[in-house]
Amino acid sequence: MTERVHFELVARDQATRARAGLLHTPHGVVETPAFMPVGTAGTVKGMTQDELERLGVQMLLANTYHLYLRPGHETIRELGGLHRFMSWPHPILTDSGGFQVMSLKSLGRVTEDGIWFRSHLDGSSHFLSPERAVEIQWALGADIIMTLDECVEYPSSHETLQRAVRLTGRWARRAKEFHEAQVSGGRFQVSGQLEMQPQSQSAAPSPQSPAPSPGFSAPTPDSLLATPALFGIVQGGVDKGLRRESAEEIMELGFAGYAIGGLSVGEPKAEMYELAEYTADLLPAHLPRYLMGVGTPADLAECVARGVDLFDCVMPTRHARNASVFTSEGNLVLKNARYARDPSPLDPACPCAVCRRYSRSYLRHLSVAGEMLAAILATHHNLYFYLDTMRKIRQSVFCGRFAEFCSRVRTQP
Amino acid sequence: MTERVHFELVARDQATRARAGLLHTPHGVVETPAFMPVGTAGTVKGMTQDELERLGVQMLLANTYHLYLRPGHETIRELGGLHRFMSWPHPILTDSGGFQVMSLKSLGRVTEDGIWFRSHLDGSSHFLSPERAVEIQWALGADIIMTLDECVEYPSSHETLQRAVRLTGRWARRAKEFHEAQVSGGRFQVSGQLEMQPQSQSAAPSPQSPAPSPGFSAPTPDSLLATPALFGIVQGGVDKGLRRESAEEIMELGFAGYAIGGLSVGEPKAEMYELAEYTADLLPAHLPRYLMGVGTPADLAECVARGVDLFDCVMPTRHARNASVFTSEGNLVLKNARYARDPSPLDPACPCAVCRRYSRSYLRHLSVAGEMLAAILATHHNLYFYLDTMRKIRQSVFCGRFAEFCSRVRTQP
Repeated sequence: MTERVHFELVARDQATRARAGLLHTPHGVVETPAFMPVGTAGTVKGMTQDELERLGVQMLLANTYHLYLRPGHETIRELGGLHRFMSWPHPILTDSGGFQVMSLKSLGRVTEDGIWFRSHLDGSSHFLSPERAVEIQWALGADIIMTLDECVEYPSSHETLQRAVRLTGRWARRAKEFHEAQVSGGRFQVSGQLEMQPQSQSAAPSPQSPAPSPGFSAPTPDSLLATPALFGIVQGGVDKGLRRESAEEIMELGFAGYAIGGLSVGEPKAEMYELAEYTADLLPAHLPRYLMGVGTPADLAECVARGVDLFDCVMPTRHARNASVFTSEGNLVLKNARYARDPSPLDPACPCAVCRRYSRSYLRHLSVAGEMLAAILATHHNLYFYLDTMRKIRQSVFCGRFAEFCSRVRTQP
Repeated sequence: MTERVHFELVARDQATRARAGLLHTPHGVVETPAFMPVGTAGTVKGMTQDELERLGVQMLLANTYHLYLRPGHETIRELGGLHRFMSWPHPILTDSGGFQVMSLKSLGRVTEDGIWFRSHLDGSSHFLSPERAVEIQWALGADIIMTLDECVEYPSSHETLQRAVRLTGRWARRAKEFHEAQVSGGRFQVSGQLEMQPQSQSAAPSPQSPAPSPGFSAPTPDSLLATPALFGIVQGGVDKGLRRESAEEIMELGFAGYAIGGLSVGEPKAEMYELAEYTADLLPAHLPRYLMGVGTPADLAECVARGVDLFDCVMPTRHARNASVFTSEGNLVLKNARYARDPSPLDPACPCAVCRRYSRSYLRHLSVAGEMLAAILATHHNLYFYLDTMRKIRQSVFCGRFAEFCSRVRTQP
């Protein structure tokens, strides 16, 4: 049996709340603080899995909503789970699908029982309950899965926030109970739908052996059937009272890790930092804390300083496709005419494969010409920049220089 | 001074006209027969240059028409030439631009002096003469450059073909004379436009040093200023008399290599093979023969058997973007529903990085979801398939088994 998810705290910063840890999962160990690139539909747009490995990505986030609609979680389960389907034998976290349902405005109706929504692909009607969200994520086979929550927009009234916090609490209980039943009953013995095709999984021909590459190992049957860990989510917007209420209720249920949801939804940055710190302080010190959907490289440093261990954000990849790149000197908009004859690399201080090989003039040309390679190279660079920022953060925590690192980040453009 | 372009014949097949050679260029040696992937606008769509090197690409084709319009040949020259601009320190062949002008229907008017055309980007009016085509290609700095020719559609009347053959002949003479003047006068001493900015080139800051990677070496000033070799083009459609007339006229002028143009424009395949053989037989045995715009993997084998050394074609890359992949069992259309749960690789007989790592089900999912990674992986596989076919062809010529290889290819789907 492979390792179950657990968190090991290995260093603490003296001057801030920053900490460094090891998040053990069935598919490997993740060094925290960690940034998870977003692989929406089972692919980080524009990147091959080989390239993600070369970049040093340790864990990906994949979106349950997208994979549920296409190709379908049952298809992925039959093919041996998401790790095997996308040939990513390293840790994966899936979200609950709730955030996409709400943010894609495909939302039909939030009821006590769950969320009715329409597919953005074909308009078909679907229902996502706390149990169903867990069931789908078990089928996908991620290492870490998330409870269904209700994330409301900013600003929202106290009443709306309170309603969302309490609904999130009741849903968390139902998710936890369903998850526990799955764990104790074995993978295929609780849900009718999950029971359907245990035979076809073992009968299916094995996919080809993946190429040996650095850090790559073929998923074993054991790891494919490994038990995922369920994380709870704290809501409450920018209301500290509700944050406390939500945190207490979720912690009372008990999860393998805790996420801070409902931030980075439009509130001022100072409030985001303040609420991240306030909420992180409420959570158990020995478990991982995950700030969902955040943020810029500076946000990563600021929120690590406030006690956060895990992050995900579409920003590096989405910005890259919009021809915007992160550099040590600030953001650079590729299409800018000033780069037309600029032979220097995107970021002279960056040692990534793109900055070592290509010039701004070439990248600008690719971008203006609408060439795929513009998005590919910009994505590579932006992910490198994020991962490298996180490596520097982690390193500075170990050597007692994290506060210094933070102040450098703050004075940068 | 780096090596000038010359061709070394190293093996001949006994049973066919196939031969193997080494095409020496200022940027390295190309093993022939060779297939050149098409890097239209200075990028092989969806591929990084690192990946092209890993695939074993020895020579790229780039399109003068596209680079002339965007970013402009003067910009590329100022940035140190196309090799440096796109960070491809290996051999490059550029076409004359004439074919695109005609095939993109942006054609205004063919006159004795050259071709008037409108940009497909902004409708602006441009003029391409035989001299101008050479001048632009010198500015791009390719290793092998092509004369401007007139390629007419299939079918065309004898009169049209004859007119095109004779115009192509007169243009070839002008191109040759202009090129010779460039060679003897030095790069910046003939053309007014090329004289304009010799200072800005040497004054420009050097691009960053490229990363050391397999087969990679930084372009030296010498190699950047290396003299390109000019190839002549034989026209004549499917008319053997005109092919002979064209070949004699072009050979009389004398070029470093010869291209067979005006095939694969709609004529039946048997005629294409016959005319390729007929034309190749007319050309000097000691110089490289380049069949432009051909073809399928089977076409490569068939035309090597008829004495051709060099090929280019958009087929592997364009088909890939249209979700069509070449396999040892025939073409495979990725979006086909039958692959939705197929865990096998694209081609079970293929050892490429894509076939070693990903399943048909995953590639189908990516393709249906419109993910960039579908095009990236399919392009990688298709290029591997083409390059591997060519490696097998070359190998079989050396070991006297080429005819056997050809008959195997013919019996495949």
